[in-house]
Amino acid sequence: MNIGIRIKRRTLQAFVFFAAFSFVASAHAAAGDQDLINKANQIFGPLPQTMQTEQNPITPAKVKLGKVLFYELRISIDGTVSCAKCHPLSLYAADGLKKAKGNNCKENPRNAPTIFNAATQISEHWIGNRTSVEDQAKQSVTGPPAFGMPSYESVEKILKGMKGYVTMFQEAFPGEKEPVTINNFAKAIGAFERTLVTPAPFDAFMKGNVGAMTEQQKKGLKTFLDTGCMACHSSPYAGGQMYQKFGVFEPYVKYTKSEKIDEGRFAVTKNEADKYLFKVPVLRNVAMTPPYFHDGSVNKLDQAIWIMAKIQLGKDLSHQQTGDIAAFLTSLTGRIPDDALTVPIVPSAE
Amino acid sequence: MNIGIRIKRRTLQAFVFFAAFSFVASAHAAAGDQDLINKANQIFGPLPQTMQTEQNPITPAKVKLGKVLFYELRISIDGTVSCAKCHPLSLYAADGLKKAKGNNCKENPRNAPTIFNAATQISEHWIGNRTSVEDQAKQSVTGPPAFGMPSYESVEKILKGMKGYVTMFQEAFPGEKEPVTINNFAKAIGAFERTLVTPAPFDAFMKGNVGAMTEQQKKGLKTFLDTGCMACHSSPYAGGQMYQKFGVFEPYVKYTKSEKIDEGRFAVTKNEADKYLFKVPVLRNVAMTPPYFHDGSVNKLDQAIWIMAKIQLGKDLSHQQTGDIAAFLTSLTGRIPDDALTVPIVPSAE
Repeated sequence: MNIGIRIKRRTLQAFVFFAAFSFVASAHAAAGDQDLINKANQIFGPLPQTMQTEQNPITPAKVKLGKVLFYELRISIDGTVSCAKCHPLSLYAADGLKKAKGNNCKENPRNAPTIFNAATQISEHWIGNRTSVEDQAKQSVTGPPAFGMPSYESVEKILKGMKGYVTMFQEAFPGEKEPVTINNFAKAIGAFERTLVTPAPFDAFMKGNVGAMTEQQKKGLKTFLDTGCMACHSSPYAGGQMYQKFGVFEPYVKYTKSEKIDEGRFAVTKNEADKYLFKVPVLRNVAMTPPYFHDGSVNKLDQAIWIMAKIQLGKDLSHQQTGDIAAFLTSLTGRIPDDALTVPIVPSAE
Repeated sequence: MNIGIRIKRRTLQAFVFFAAFSFVASAHAAAGDQDLINKANQIFGPLPQTMQTEQNPITPAKVKLGKVLFYELRISIDGTVSCAKCHPLSLYAADGLKKAKGNNCKENPRNAPTIFNAATQISEHWIGNRTSVEDQAKQSVTGPPAFGMPSYESVEKILKGMKGYVTMFQEAFPGEKEPVTINNFAKAIGAFERTLVTPAPFDAFMKGNVGAMTEQQKKGLKTFLDTGCMACHSSPYAGGQMYQKFGVFEPYVKYTKSEKIDEGRFAVTKNEADKYLFKVPVLRNVAMTPPYFHDGSVNKLDQAIWIMAKIQLGKDLSHQQTGDIAAFLTSLTGRIPDDALTVPIVPSAE
């Protein structure tokens, strides 16, 4: 009996101790989580449901047309390029290549970014030579290493030649006399792209669901903030809002496997101050879209993180720190809207 | 009143006449339809629900894996080729090109046929140099103008390097110690392809729904049968069951825009009797998959029909007849299974 009582007493003591410890620990964790949630909300903020604008409001008919056009191969000079070529949804809408390949296997100057969560950036493309997703869609069709078509008119002619398209353009742009235009083509694809928002575990965490992220992911978020990454990678998209020099402390080519030096935004503005400036990329779904940087010169996420801290912030992160930040970044891997994941059938040629 | 009675009498007479006429006409139509339904069932017969075999039974896990692999670009030598490249579902699983383009824009020797309703043919590819859809999938990865990989082992190594694939192969091939093999790769893609049956209005008609086809489509079916097209284009797939010489009455190059003469199955067998023999293609969804013939040398369906009748059967069809047959062939445009039309997300690289 005595032994029994002793054991029971010890068990009770142990239980009390454990309960008290757990309470303190979880109160501490909760306080830590709340602090992190508050900071995250300040820096990133809630992801919107869509990225529509007044200039291009989302309508079902426009999105439907835009998605069909997104898969259209027959408006490229060799019949092998559609938007989906460089932005296959199966690969989180990036193509996995260092640099995108367009018509006749022509190499594009830079890596193709994902089109998910892409429509509210200050500009499109790495050097900001496209003003919007609509402008990007429009310029792609005549881009020599992209669709390679000789003119906008040649694209319009092909689309006008298919009854299915004429009907869909009429439905998407009601009341317009001649709706099959390159600008409406761009608007429809833009409207589709403006639906492509991918809510992730990180968003659930920001809303207060502390279990949505693992402890390592939270630690990585803290490291991301403490290191200063968020100075550029802010907004709900964790990027896309500014240009920055790639290589503030040291030239990037010292660490990347870049084959040549890219002068970045200088090519657009011819302004000396814009040399080596690139748009800060959106980090949403970054774990799903290697290789990294404007030239796809780095394959591994933790290596890309280490290089960024080193040359942008002058910090030499430990293996543990890059691993934690990489873990945080996987919490930005989001859910693709179901509607976007169904393949549309393009109109028949005859 | 008199006038009123006269009108009523006339109305009644007219009604009786119209009713009697309609009865006779519809009885006549019904008899004609029934005769056509009977003939169609004899020659074509019901489309099965799937094309599974004992060697490769369909399981959900295998189909899931097969669909993911179907979209996998990272197992091609230049990262630009997946099964979906030459068989994009948005274009009814053909690519719209004269001849398929593989890695580094290499041209394949022949036109890429649709993979819908393709798995029960006597062989795959135009000249029968692939024994089954599984064999086709397997040989594609090392095919120099296709995926262009150096060996099966190199493909297995890439797949084994992604945890997501290891799990999916384990689930698709339970109990196997080393499930990530090229043969299982082929089986999984084959299982997916064996689900790709596309029931069409023609099938509803064969089941007795006389309204499922238009009058012109029925007339076209009758012309198709009367002309003799069904001598080769039989079975539920309207083809795929035999080899035939392309150009029985006259050489095909006389009418097609072929750039060079293709000796067909002779390349496989080296048997003189197999010169210019090609597999009779499946006509399911033919209206959605131009251009036509082994070299994609003809764009228009009615022109392809005219050439076939001319050089295979020695018949010079009228514009009306080719139009009617083309109309019939559009009744073979079927419904793609919903499951097949959702894009899968491929496993992440890390």
